[in-house]
Amino acid sequence: MSLKKVVLTALSCALLAAPLAQADRTEDAIEYRQGIFKAYGWHFGAMGAMVRGKVDYDAEQFAHHAKSFLAVAPLAVEGFVEGSDFGETAAKDELWDNLDDVNQRFVDMTEAAEKLVALTGGELSDAKAAFGAVAKSCKGCHDNYREKR
Amino acid sequence: MSLKKVVLTALSCALLAAPLAQADRTEDAIEYRQGIFKAYGWHFGAMGAMVRGKVDYDAEQFAHHAKSFLAVAPLAVEGFVEGSDFGETAAKDELWDNLDDVNQRFVDMTEAAEKLVALTGGELSDAKAAFGAVAKSCKGCHDNYREKR
Repeated sequence: MSLKKVVLTALSCALLAAPLAQADRTEDAIEYRQGIFKAYGWHFGAMGAMVRGKVDYDAEQFAHHAKSFLAVAPLAVEGFVEGSDFGETAAKDELWDNLDDVNQRFVDMTEAAEKLVALTGGELSDAKAAFGAVAKSCKGCHDNYREKR
Repeated sequence: MSLKKVVLTALSCALLAAPLAQADRTEDAIEYRQGIFKAYGWHFGAMGAMVRGKVDYDAEQFAHHAKSFLAVAPLAVEGFVEGSDFGETAAKDELWDNLDDVNQRFVDMTEAAEKLVALTGGELSDAKAAFGAVAKSCKGCHDNYREKR
């Protein structure tokens, strides 16, 4: 049993179990996680445009994007299934050796997104720090596990 | 004001408001909705494999995929923003003239997914009809608004 397999087996994350049961889903897994990452970008980008003052702040819209971001936040990690480390992926080799850390980072990021949602609906200033915390969480994972493109 | 604009303006769906404020987000909108559609396929496909007997039924996994499908179900429609009717899209011309119907279909599909989630966790036979109702909802939209590929 390879180290990678041991790590994967040790992961308690139920999310990983189903895809592992279907070895032929590796290509779908790449498209799945990349699709979810696109959704991250869409919702996060819309909030970021308001935070940076590129678009007028709209409390309802900001809250909508925060809530939608939270809905997809925990999902992408499910796409990092064994055998999907090929093709059009920006995942660094390091990612596959640190799946427990990757999983934890998604848990932490989702918690940061929950905090952000709780602070939306009012003034932008109320939500800025929480938005920054999510951004920092994203960046942490990118710095460690994503190839620069 | 074009008919399309009137229809868009008439839509009460708050989801459409933010993207419309950012005309340069049309390409992102296509990638966003296609990303969400990939997520539909991932979760729905995993359930479908169990329903069709291709993969052994696992109540926990089935429930997970139903819940995840529900999380993304309402999102894709947000990507059908004005001006995103170009490039790599399978959206038929008819879609752009029937955005209120498209929006309603996503609402109905999300409701069907809610019913499915409520029936998961037990025997597969408990959830089969509700799964079929979601599948029918998907198909209805595809038949009307999606180019065959």
